[in-house]
Amino acid sequence: MNKNDQGLLLAIGGGEDRKREKLILKKFVYLAGGSLAKIMIVPVASGNGEVLGQEYSEIFKSLGSLQTEVVNITSRKEALHSRWERKLPKVTGVFFTGGDQLKLTSILGGTVFERELKKMFARGMILAGTSAGAAAMSGTMIVEGLSDKPPLQCTVKMAPGLGFLQEVVIDQHFAQRGRVGRLLAAVAQNPFVIGLGLDEDTAVLVNGTGVLKVIGSQTAVVIDGHDSISSNVTETYGHDPLAIIGVTFHVLPSGHGFQLKKRKYLGPTSREVEAVEFS
Amino acid sequence: MNKNDQGLLLAIGGGEDRKREKLILKKFVYLAGGSLAKIMIVPVASGNGEVLGQEYSEIFKSLGSLQTEVVNITSRKEALHSRWERKLPKVTGVFFTGGDQLKLTSILGGTVFERELKKMFARGMILAGTSAGAAAMSGTMIVEGLSDKPPLQCTVKMAPGLGFLQEVVIDQHFAQRGRVGRLLAAVAQNPFVIGLGLDEDTAVLVNGTGVLKVIGSQTAVVIDGHDSISSNVTETYGHDPLAIIGVTFHVLPSGHGFQLKKRKYLGPTSREVEAVEFS
Repeated sequence: MNKNDQGLLLAIGGGEDRKREKLILKKFVYLAGGSLAKIMIVPVASGNGEVLGQEYSEIFKSLGSLQTEVVNITSRKEALHSRWERKLPKVTGVFFTGGDQLKLTSILGGTVFERELKKMFARGMILAGTSAGAAAMSGTMIVEGLSDKPPLQCTVKMAPGLGFLQEVVIDQHFAQRGRVGRLLAAVAQNPFVIGLGLDEDTAVLVNGTGVLKVIGSQTAVVIDGHDSISSNVTETYGHDPLAIIGVTFHVLPSGHGFQLKKRKYLGPTSREVEAVEFS
Repeated sequence: MNKNDQGLLLAIGGGEDRKREKLILKKFVYLAGGSLAKIMIVPVASGNGEVLGQEYSEIFKSLGSLQTEVVNITSRKEALHSRWERKLPKVTGVFFTGGDQLKLTSILGGTVFERELKKMFARGMILAGTSAGAAAMSGTMIVEGLSDKPPLQCTVKMAPGLGFLQEVVIDQHFAQRGRVGRLLAAVAQNPFVIGLGLDEDTAVLVNGTGVLKVIGSQTAVVIDGHDSISSNVTETYGHDPLAIIGVTFHVLPSGHGFQLKKRKYLGPTSREVEAVEFS
């Protein structure tokens, strides 16, 4: 359990290496306890949950985790069952697969499963999610939006997320699908959020104090509009391109850190960043 | 001729509307003199110059320009001919088509044609270019670079441009091809330049004082790293993703203005922006 009574988040931008070094998934297994890990794989977002869940199960086993379980919840009824009160406390790490983030929130939102997961997270458990599984972690999440477009008034559809990470909006497949426009539009709508764009095969590890560390082969982009942004988001309609002025942009490769609450770059070598893994 | 003894630049991000309203091309014809315009179309960048040149010629005629000429220079020998000393002074506007910006610079760079074009530009002529024709306008130009990638050390290949616009690097098809990574990399390499990312069917009109006005259906992005950027561009190699911290990002839709020399947003309604067309 970390000092802030909150576990670690590992938000992955999708497309993580599952065949070669598996750097990010290896880190997840290690942080969940290594050979002592008890990992619950939750492929709820996927349309092919059992198969995808088994695939991750094999990977986590190959990386040294002896106990893994695939929990493919397909209805709110299952998610509302009281058995999660007994099952989740035995788990040291939960992994959300990719798919459709609305499936995650519409099936799990406000259920016994979510409540117990949050309890365990507050006690220091690690929660990882890739692609849709990462998007759903934020308080408000991006559901869909146009790629390879400038920020348009209507670019981005949002919905309430699972809320493991507040004041942040996560987007994934970020550079690979040209999503800077839609994340800029999200930040313009409410600059109290930080836009966090995660490239494929790249993750951020975030602790309870708001320090993040980047892991993986590409980058995480931080879009900060808090102090100086101005936009015409309230004066535009539909497919109007937005004017968005004075946004601060940071591109962070592996090893670099950022303090989300203080909106401050921490560099690649600071003790605060190194300590994230030991939170 | 404007007060700064310099003509207008119209840099278009490619893919401009050539079938319907033709807003940007209409503006070019108007600024070149309307029915009195004498337009020289220079399809040097294109592999199919005669056909593309004729296509633009038809469009400019349909928009009211009575005199257009296609000048498809294919060798330095042609570009070095002294006839341009007689031909260019009769022209009120020059239009560079798209294609390969290296063809523009390798054929025209340092020739009689370029020298006479610059003379006319200094006397107030309008120079327009789309896609490669826009890219080649900057002092240093982007030749190629990976799209839909984060900024990598090797992302962007640059070369000396034609130098009509200094201290700026222009990229085109900007949002549509996910090119923010390569433009960020260019700015990180030398933050004295402003990165100017032009979306398709979008142009900037720039006058001799450095004021630009956006025209078209999408946006122009201004990336400014002058005051606060830091990066690890000198400590990385090859396909390493870069750390780029503290870049300021502006997204400008049609009608909005920016003062490039002062690195200052001018808004959508200022007199300075309105005046660009009358420079």
